[in-house]
Amino acid sequence: MIGYNLMLWLDILGTAVFAISGVLLAGKLRMDPFGVLVLGVVTAIGGGTIRDMALANGPVFWVKDPTDLIVAMLTCVLTLLLVRQPRRLPKWILPVLDAIGLAVFVGIGVNKAFDAGSGPLVAVCMGVITGVGGGIIRDVLAREIPMILRTEVYATACIIGGTVHAATFYILGISLQQAMMLGMVITLGIRLAAIRWHLKLPAFVLEQ
Amino acid sequence: MIGYNLMLWLDILGTAVFAISGVLLAGKLRMDPFGVLVLGVVTAIGGGTIRDMALANGPVFWVKDPTDLIVAMLTCVLTLLLVRQPRRLPKWILPVLDAIGLAVFVGIGVNKAFDAGSGPLVAVCMGVITGVGGGIIRDVLAREIPMILRTEVYATACIIGGTVHAATFYILGISLQQAMMLGMVITLGIRLAAIRWHLKLPAFVLEQ
Amino acid sequence: MIGYNLMLWLDILGTAVFAISGVLLAGKLRMDPFGVLVLGVVTAIGGGTIRDMALANGPVFWVKDPTDLIVAMLTCVLTLLLVRQPRRLPKWILPVLDAIGLAVFVGIGVNKAFDAGSGPLVAVCMGVITGVGGGIIRDVLAREIPMILRTEVYATACIIGGTVHAATFYILGISLQQAMMLGMVITLGIRLAAIRWHLKLPAFVLEQ
Repeated sequence: MIGYNLMLWLDILGTAVFAISGVLLAGKLRMDPFGVLVLGVVTAIGGGTIRDMALANGPVFWVKDPTDLIVAMLTCVLTLLLVRQPRRLPKWILPVLDAIGLAVFVGIGVNKAFDAGSGPLVAVCMGVITGVGGGIIRDVLAREIPMILRTEVYATACIIGGTVHAATFYILGISLQQAMMLGMVITLGIRLAAIRWHLKLPAFVLEQ
Repeated sequence: MIGYNLMLWLDILGTAVFAISGVLLAGKLRMDPFGVLVLGVVTAIGGGTIRDMALANGPVFWVKDPTDLIVAMLTCVLTLLLVRQPRRLPKWILPVLDAIGLAVFVGIGVNKAFDAGSGPLVAVCMGVITGVGGGIIRDVLAREIPMILRTEVYATACIIGGTVHAATFYILGISLQQAMMLGMVITLGIRLAAIRWHLKLPAFVLEQ
Repeated sequence: MIGYNLMLWLDILGTAVFAISGVLLAGKLRMDPFGVLVLGVVTAIGGGTIRDMALANGPVFWVKDPTDLIVAMLTCVLTLLLVRQPRRLPKWILPVLDAIGLAVFVGIGVNKAFDAGSGPLVAVCMGVITGVGGGIIRDVLAREIPMILRTEVYATACIIGGTVHAATFYILGISLQQAMMLGMVITLGIRLAAIRWHLKLPAFVLEQ
């Protein structure tokens, strides 16, 4: 029961922070409020939507249960109403929100894949898709360079976190909930460390 | 019977105008005729394809019944053959075609979601996805700024039209067909007014 | 039996060459190794994923059987480890790899659509989607002009190859495997000829 509630709250948290990240990015683009709403909602539910289409386990989650859709919409509306700017938005806001949503959604994606009967490799992929999908759609629509294409250990963080999650559950046999918490802390920790200290892996570069 | 025929003709109309819009946009990009065909067809059937993937109500519509696919292809071929340019294309052509397709497809999307058993909130979302999906794919492929990201009440028009459609049917209890006609007229009217008088909502802007 | 093995090997070949093409393109973008891995894998499995979502014939192929996923990952890792550059990559490498993957995946897509009970028109579309989908995602993420939008008979090659494949099977009644080989040779031949001699169809251009 606690497990179920925890999942629900994490889901709402991830949805809300991604929605805010979509709205804040939209603030660069001179869009009208309804356009902002669309970008925020797509960012919040995009990753899980692609995951559910790939798992083909019935309609996507927000068709089965519109809770997340409502959370995303309300968050966008509140952000639109409440964000006033006495001064510039600090530069770390968007990456940090994105990091929280990433960590939560990778964990949820791995869990949902295991629930649908997938093996650990597919589960990690579903975690990565859930985590990065919404942000990729947001960045492609806004014509930003997708975060996953930058060097600051973005894909790295969610692949490592998702792999720890899947491996500790599947190989070591700890509970799925504990494995998820561990994976989420690792994904989030790596991303926050990367943002704080500008960590980078060596880039793979080919002259062309 | 009349209702069914009306839906069919509206569907063909929306498919054709979106296909033309894809071909006209392709005219900017120096593509060869088969590339133009692909862009036109994707624009025409893209939104409904994403909707059907999300509803997961069996294969997507053009796999079940290739009528729309054939309409899209023939429209592209005819447009390629018939469009000759004595002078520049008037600037309003592309937005107006897009507006007609948008209004029709939002209505069809809302209806299909109700048919699949969705509630009104999900139905409005499916309407918006159906209406804007093809144009977004068209614009992302062509590396244009997606219309939905501009300020000229694009998302606004289809959210208001779709909401009126869903609400008059679901709350007021008028027939689905009448609700659809009302919603479509509203979406189209708002878009045409916005194009004609350059209406804009105040943009949401954050300095970053 | 031979037929089954042939399909399997072609599938692995197509997956591997698309994965390499994703990694080589990533080499332009200064990404870290895990980001490169994601781009390579998405390029390799993206087209088939969209096809399977549209056919809605159960979960997508790599969820049912992760072989291709593993092939894509191993290919990316090997490419990352082995590609060293004594000198510039020759310019033809990326288009030629892409051409091989394109020809193979168009053939596989047409076959899978026939297997799922589709008619010839839908089968050709599924072939084109399977062939071009991964490369389009790769190019959109990397913010390159998608190959399919360029004039060098890219869409043309796969539409002609796929049509020959579907028509010789469906109308002339030759075996599906022979039809596939014929279609693949035609797609590949047209693309290689286009790359070698810079063949172009006349572009469709509208002043706007």
